[in-house]
Amino acid sequence: MSASKGRVLLAYSGGLDTSCILAWLIEQGYEVYAFMADVGQEEDFAAAEKKALKVGAKKFFLQDLKREFITELIYPAVQANCIYEVGALAWHDFAPNLLIARGMIEVADREGCDYVSHGCTGKGNDQVRFELSFYGLKPDIKVVAPWRLPEFYNRFPGRNALLDYAAQKNIPVVQTAAKPWSTDENLFHISYEAGILEDPNTTPPADMWKLTTAPEEAPETPERITIEFTAGLPTKVTVGNKTHTDAVDIFLTLNALGRKHGIGRIDIVENRFIGVKSRGCYESPGATILRAAHIDLEGLTLDRNVRALRDQFVTVSLSRMLYNGHFFTPEREFIVSAIPASQRTVNGLVRLKLYKGNVVIEGRESSEGLYDERQSSMDEMGGFEPTDTTGFIQIESIRIKKWAQANIRRGQAGVTAKDVYGTRA
Amino acid sequence: MSASKGRVLLAYSGGLDTSCILAWLIEQGYEVYAFMADVGQEEDFAAAEKKALKVGAKKFFLQDLKREFITELIYPAVQANCIYEVGALAWHDFAPNLLIARGMIEVADREGCDYVSHGCTGKGNDQVRFELSFYGLKPDIKVVAPWRLPEFYNRFPGRNALLDYAAQKNIPVVQTAAKPWSTDENLFHISYEAGILEDPNTTPPADMWKLTTAPEEAPETPERITIEFTAGLPTKVTVGNKTHTDAVDIFLTLNALGRKHGIGRIDIVENRFIGVKSRGCYESPGATILRAAHIDLEGLTLDRNVRALRDQFVTVSLSRMLYNGHFFTPEREFIVSAIPASQRTVNGLVRLKLYKGNVVIEGRESSEGLYDERQSSMDEMGGFEPTDTTGFIQIESIRIKKWAQANIRRGQAGVTAKDVYGTRA
Amino acid sequence: MSASKGRVLLAYSGGLDTSCILAWLIEQGYEVYAFMADVGQEEDFAAAEKKALKVGAKKFFLQDLKREFITELIYPAVQANCIYEVGALAWHDFAPNLLIARGMIEVADREGCDYVSHGCTGKGNDQVRFELSFYGLKPDIKVVAPWRLPEFYNRFPGRNALLDYAAQKNIPVVQTAAKPWSTDENLFHISYEAGILEDPNTTPPADMWKLTTAPEEAPETPERITIEFTAGLPTKVTVGNKTHTDAVDIFLTLNALGRKHGIGRIDIVENRFIGVKSRGCYESPGATILRAAHIDLEGLTLDRNVRALRDQFVTVSLSRMLYNGHFFTPEREFIVSAIPASQRTVNGLVRLKLYKGNVVIEGRESSEGLYDERQSSMDEMGGFEPTDTTGFIQIESIRIKKWAQANIRRGQAGVTAKDVYGTRA
Amino acid sequence: MSASKGRVLLAYSGGLDTSCILAWLIEQGYEVYAFMADVGQEEDFAAAEKKALKVGAKKFFLQDLKREFITELIYPAVQANCIYEVGALAWHDFAPNLLIARGMIEVADREGCDYVSHGCTGKGNDQVRFELSFYGLKPDIKVVAPWRLPEFYNRFPGRNALLDYAAQKNIPVVQTAAKPWSTDENLFHISYEAGILEDPNTTPPADMWKLTTAPEEAPETPERITIEFTAGLPTKVTVGNKTHTDAVDIFLTLNALGRKHGIGRIDIVENRFIGVKSRGCYESPGATILRAAHIDLEGLTLDRNVRALRDQFVTVSLSRMLYNGHFFTPEREFIVSAIPASQRTVNGLVRLKLYKGNVVIEGRESSEGLYDERQSSMDEMGGFEPTDTTGFIQIESIRIKKWAQANIRRGQAGVTAKDVYGTRA
Repeated sequence: MSASKGRVLLAYSGGLDTSCILAWLIEQGYEVYAFMADVGQEEDFAAAEKKALKVGAKKFFLQDLKREFITELIYPAVQANCIYEVGALAWHDFAPNLLIARGMIEVADREGCDYVSHGCTGKGNDQVRFELSFYGLKPDIKVVAPWRLPEFYNRFPGRNALLDYAAQKNIPVVQTAAKPWSTDENLFHISYEAGILEDPNTTPPADMWKLTTAPEEAPETPERITIEFTAGLPTKVTVGNKTHTDAVDIFLTLNALGRKHGIGRIDIVENRFIGVKSRGCYESPGATILRAAHIDLEGLTLDRNVRALRDQFVTVSLSRMLYNGHFFTPEREFIVSAIPASQRTVNGLVRLKLYKGNVVIEGRESSEGLYDERQSSMDEMGGFEPTDTTGFIQIESIRIKKWAQANIRRGQAGVTAKDVYGTRA
Repeated sequence: MSASKGRVLLAYSGGLDTSCILAWLIEQGYEVYAFMADVGQEEDFAAAEKKALKVGAKKFFLQDLKREFITELIYPAVQANCIYEVGALAWHDFAPNLLIARGMIEVADREGCDYVSHGCTGKGNDQVRFELSFYGLKPDIKVVAPWRLPEFYNRFPGRNALLDYAAQKNIPVVQTAAKPWSTDENLFHISYEAGILEDPNTTPPADMWKLTTAPEEAPETPERITIEFTAGLPTKVTVGNKTHTDAVDIFLTLNALGRKHGIGRIDIVENRFIGVKSRGCYESPGATILRAAHIDLEGLTLDRNVRALRDQFVTVSLSRMLYNGHFFTPEREFIVSAIPASQRTVNGLVRLKLYKGNVVIEGRESSEGLYDERQSSMDEMGGFEPTDTTGFIQIESIRIKKWAQANIRRGQAGVTAKDVYGTRA
Repeated sequence: MSASKGRVLLAYSGGLDTSCILAWLIEQGYEVYAFMADVGQEEDFAAAEKKALKVGAKKFFLQDLKREFITELIYPAVQANCIYEVGALAWHDFAPNLLIARGMIEVADREGCDYVSHGCTGKGNDQVRFELSFYGLKPDIKVVAPWRLPEFYNRFPGRNALLDYAAQKNIPVVQTAAKPWSTDENLFHISYEAGILEDPNTTPPADMWKLTTAPEEAPETPERITIEFTAGLPTKVTVGNKTHTDAVDIFLTLNALGRKHGIGRIDIVENRFIGVKSRGCYESPGATILRAAHIDLEGLTLDRNVRALRDQFVTVSLSRMLYNGHFFTPEREFIVSAIPASQRTVNGLVRLKLYKGNVVIEGRESSEGLYDERQSSMDEMGGFEPTDTTGFIQIESIRIKKWAQANIRRGQAGVTAKDVYGTRA
Repeated sequence: MSASKGRVLLAYSGGLDTSCILAWLIEQGYEVYAFMADVGQEEDFAAAEKKALKVGAKKFFLQDLKREFITELIYPAVQANCIYEVGALAWHDFAPNLLIARGMIEVADREGCDYVSHGCTGKGNDQVRFELSFYGLKPDIKVVAPWRLPEFYNRFPGRNALLDYAAQKNIPVVQTAAKPWSTDENLFHISYEAGILEDPNTTPPADMWKLTTAPEEAPETPERITIEFTAGLPTKVTVGNKTHTDAVDIFLTLNALGRKHGIGRIDIVENRFIGVKSRGCYESPGATILRAAHIDLEGLTLDRNVRALRDQFVTVSLSRMLYNGHFFTPEREFIVSAIPASQRTVNGLVRLKLYKGNVVIEGRESSEGLYDERQSSMDEMGGFEPTDTTGFIQIESIRIKKWAQANIRRGQAGVTAKDVYGTRA
């Protein structure tokens, strides 16, 4: 069969799904090039290349995107304290797909591919992140998403159908004991979902967690480190007498420390972009440490009002954009343009203690000078007269007194009407 | 000396400062009534009463505000996931003064007091919270704030001047070894600030922490508990085979558990209402557990869009109001009116593991039905066609494609212009 | 032909499109019931009923939704000062479909219809509003949207194909001179779009505007009216010596006044929900007057902080929900629950002058008492000491001085570095 | 008397108040330099200089700040569609004091002044704007605000006391018929407040309005103009066959046009920074035209999501900063840094008709290409399949259906429970 349909660049993972997709695309009449990105996952890339070519890919491309991932996606998110569903206690489902998509469009442009393809399911976030990024970079690119094509998903209703097809197409299948959940790994985190995790009340088994030591098994002795920030970016990590200053080295070092000390596990029910609730477990060791340190330093070095505005706007909106894949968009360009001015003063260091799942801030230091011991001291005067505060309170209460007077006239004085202030419906 | 200036109700703590203020107010010609509130601090109230009357108070009032504190301040804050400086990792400086102020205005009204007074310094948040609450309840009340009156603060420039005055007035002084920091305790938390803590890079000494066991010293064996919520309010806590259902009992039980397992310490540089940065350490054991559980349950039971709006709207603004003392205000009334509709579906239970500083969510359950295993499952179809997502992505990308086309026309296509997306200034 | 496919309730307009859809649905094997809503459009409902039955509808239902439209959609929007794309100068594309959908679901439930259907195109907002409302009320209802079905839209590629079909099906067609734009009318407004208006630089011809007199043709003599509000709702309109107190009467009276005086025209390029930019012209005479009056009265009667919070959250989010059709949703329920607390004090009257397109506020009055002439007067003291403001400014500047000192240390003092403050990229 | 207290730079207006302050400062022992700024007010600056020197100023400084006012304050506010109290229909009380303060600090630095002084009252916004700006530029500057000093305000309780003092000090007083309100004029607008306007229900007399023709008296013939924007800044105004391209010329031209056609009057009750409600009337002719044009062009050229984020984030917060005088602050620097990215695509022209108070948009044009006639057309397909919208709606409704199902299970189905959706408390 000739490749009459044109050339497609497939986001290839080396696994069963995308290998079957590769074979199926060829069967459908496409010429297939395979694309892999190294975003820090545990993977034998050479074996994957060999497999892709064996299955029938005409070419294979591997891009190392670890540095881009750290400097273009993760560090800006650290600067803005991003966290999806801001109330949450940790980030979940942080996506490198945006940059993988960019790498694919680069290759597709250069290699004359008419199509790009991926193996994401029709229910998740990754498909959206991939495709919105494709379109934001190359609006006329065509996308083949087999798991959303009836001719594909009806043919392969389950894992066994894929295994049969693999056997038929001579696709090598690694015989691992199937785990009752699925995982996705990159250097930011690993995620676990599906299978037994679909019951939100099932506690994940202890042997599920792959990256981090359980807090119970982590070292008995705390470890102390220092992280230095320049304009909100981590520029130096000191562990014992070793220092790390390269952007990638810093992140991987924090990852190793977090793994060792059982830091960064989370088990959560989140809301996917398409509006479906989904239960996932995540381990993000380095990111958890970095986030705590950055937030702490901002306490010392960032003006209160800048922080409040940034928290309510940049943090919230950039987090949502990263999660939903609205990255190559005008709104991302807009929001990100406000980050540098918010981080100009975020310079200094934070000292941390890592211990059995805990990231404990032990101190911080900066020469920015927004903090003034003398001024905050309860023991000395320092910069302003106590009488000034009297005026401040008087002015602050003008509006409130007017409201209270009106309440009293109306017989709704606060003091006698406690229930007014309750929150019971 | 006759009480020619009128009657003043003093917020009395039993300590050196307010005892001296009590004596000084009498000296100034006021008749003084003393008011104490039990908000869960460790205190010998009988001794304090005796002392107040000995120093010269004409009457002494004690109000037990623990239940009000929990049900009117803490639980609404839990429902709204309040946290001051939203980026922060824990609440700090949570204030019962608002309710103490209400108790004082009740007494002042009933007992015919012309003035209210307190012993807060002129630099902190507590003075503002007290006074804005006084004015919001009784706009014509008069406030005597000695630490902002030059005739007082010039006369008592330091602790020794107070001690001298106490000796002269026969005010009993408890001879405790002075600690190099000051503390403030209530059932929500204890705070530490000032003294050696004024250097933000000084690690608090291990023996400072009063409420919680250090994680290092906490039990080696994790403890598992269940918290049940009804409309976002904790209504049942199960520990082993014991259950707690009373609002106060629930909170105190969680406090005891948190203390035992080293949960809820934080060391932070915060921004006071008056715009001064200040370093404080806090222990809030029960509140930390409760917050984690409530946030988790909302993941399962709260609609995504309601949550996003509530996070950005109610959480941020109510947190600020509670911190700044804008409680008896129209804006508080407004914001709080939106809480019940946000919590209607927050019903269910959360299972937690407590271990050496960690609050680990192990599962959650609800009959609300917003979560649907079948729908989120990657293994089956469940409710919508994969092809629908294709349409969704097509429509979502209309706007983005237009922007990308314009970029390309302009020669600013995203793919070749990586730096456009960087955040380096 | 038997109605083998089941019973469908069609939103019928009486025009060519929905008449052809009616016939086509029958042809496809459905039994069709027709539904019309009176939302204030100019229409001969009796003729429409006759036509529907003639084309083949088995039953015809007419609901008068004018009161619901005014009290459930328009007045809450007035209370919240809603305006889509908040920067805009007037509301555009305000939708009664939400309530029409509710009426249809009522009938569908009662009459055992398996399907609902409408004649909206696949590019506009109305289809989304209809269907999200259907699903929010009856999640298992099935929708037939012919303009999104290839078998329909391919068969009827243009108006002529519809006319041919009408002729073939004996559907009576009113021979009006076709206008080079399309319109949609209800009592809130009329909209004009498509045709010659698709060029955003084409000025609409003078004879397009149907509802309002051109300002140039409007009376030379201004007319003065008074609008009274209770809790933010208009409860009395006085024109000369006539008063109107019924909710519907009030709105229709304001509509008549606005039409007469050339008030409420707008020509705008807006962003549809699906992300497409679209040019539309609108006339909303009564709503324009009411909005101006309500906003003015809030100036007098609403606390500043409540107003600011309401503007930023309720106004913005409710406007978007109304526009996008997110009405029967949890987030609408949530946001709307905050309106009453925001309008408790919005009581009083506003005096207005209407003149050639202008709505001029001439005065307002309220007994709420948040405004205090004595306090705002520059001529007398009134309630607080000027010295208080000194303290207020001192405290407000603490944070700013710290920042300025840091700038100076860094050599970035504001005064010498004007460009720092510019906005040129 | 020697100038023993040091040198003070006084913001001098030429009027009675600041002339008396000038004399009083000298009397108090200061050496006084006088500073005037030309911000477009109607004023005889030469006469003012002569007067200041006559009263005793040692030096006189005049700065022409018209260009800075327009380019540094007004145009960024136009780019961001700023409007204080966002719900309002026009800007009110737009302040050049921020830049006057900067001019004064420049002179004070250069001329060695220890103090700056102004004649603002203790109740208004201007004092705050002046002083926060002083401190944001030179944190150690000392401010003399006579109207907040008891020794001054007690000595001059009313206008007559000032007149007596002027007579005694030989200060020339211009004998104008005193108007029963006070005014403040600059090139952005003129404001009227106090006096008879303090009753918010008093309609301003026709002869109060100084800048604009009454709509009733404005030309019978509409006038058509074109405004061109580059990156959101007005760069060309065409009136008949005359074009204006200079930033100042553009604004003054629009001012002249607005005055002629009765555009930009507003009568409002606003909330001053200190929390006092105040009634003011304003005329801002040019700004009103410019704002309408800019908002319209954004409809055509700005991405929907950027616009929504900018409206909620930049517009709201920058407006408040400008009003409250938080200009030389870190938060202003932060917010303003986001403007350029929001205006990159705001290029094109708007055609307007000016007629008796009305600013009517008649068309707009841009080569940015975010608007696509074909795409929005209801008559052709254009870029996406109608079937895509089906998928979009299906996905958008997933979440809503879940909620509706839960409502139905609970017996709270929307359709039967109309009152759930009402807003009556």
